[in-house]
Amino acid sequence: MNTLDSKLDLSFERIVDVPKELIWKAWTTPEHLMPWFCPAPWSVVACEIDLRPGGRFYTVMQSPEGKQFPGDGCYLEVVENQKLTWTNALLQDFRPIAGVAQPVQTVDFKFTASIALQSHGTGTRYTATVRHADEAGCKQHADMGFHEGWNIALDQLIVYSRKM
Amino acid sequence: MNTLDSKLDLSFERIVDVPKELIWKAWTTPEHLMPWFCPAPWSVVACEIDLRPGGRFYTVMQSPEGKQFPGDGCYLEVVENQKLTWTNALLQDFRPIAGVAQPVQTVDFKFTASIALQSHGTGTRYTATVRHADEAGCKQHADMGFHEGWNIALDQLIVYSRKM
Repeated sequence: MNTLDSKLDLSFERIVDVPKELIWKAWTTPEHLMPWFCPAPWSVVACEIDLRPGGRFYTVMQSPEGKQFPGDGCYLEVVENQKLTWTNALLQDFRPIAGVAQPVQTVDFKFTASIALQSHGTGTRYTATVRHADEAGCKQHADMGFHEGWNIALDQLIVYSRKM
Repeated sequence: MNTLDSKLDLSFERIVDVPKELIWKAWTTPEHLMPWFCPAPWSVVACEIDLRPGGRFYTVMQSPEGKQFPGDGCYLEVVENQKLTWTNALLQDFRPIAGVAQPVQTVDFKFTASIALQSHGTGTRYTATVRHADEAGCKQHADMGFHEGWNIALDQLIVYSRKM
């Protein structure tokens, strides 16, 4: 996951005052992911994690009005406390997902996302990267508020981590 | 890659009298893949292998009439001498491929393929599995002659391995 394409990829980096081991736990355990993963007042009402390459990563987000948006995919890279990569283009056991748009999915564009964690003093250098298939998907994700949404979720993770 | 779905997956297993290390080499080195990978009189005229999860696996097949059919994708699992998994649903660095059908690709259905190698006496238990997104893709692959084609290619690999 080295090369980035500014027309296809979205990325940000932050230094956060949380040990990478806690961030890893918050990303890889359903009970510790659900409280922060979705910017409030949205919430995560279901989560399934099978933490291995090819294992399922499934969440259901719920709007304040109660509408549910499932998101399904699988992990591609699982390097404990360092790197977590997953995609919504493949389902469990790497099976390609059918079609371009999944009406039951949270989003109808395909992406591969990666969280990289590096120790930084007592905290962590946190890098999030999302690769898209095409410029339209990247723009749609940016317009949906990728940067704001992922940063609010990270803020929520930081607050939640104090209670872990 | 444990569960198979008979409506979505194609698979076969053979015991072959070739050490798994040689089969691995034939699958993972362009110069040793090109001679056998495509049933004659078709041929492979270009091959790029970046042997790591997320690395590119690219081939160009050529028909007897000289028409070329590129196939692009990336590796998902690389376990030396044991297991090789790749897909045409993701490109280099796991980027999802745009659209459903890729007119420049050899095939217009998406798949994830896996070769598993286990020692068996002086030879190898060779298991090939291909997962598809939907029944239509699976049927199309079967009708194209998956079983015949992959077995002929394996026969060619066996013959070629004597010269490696």
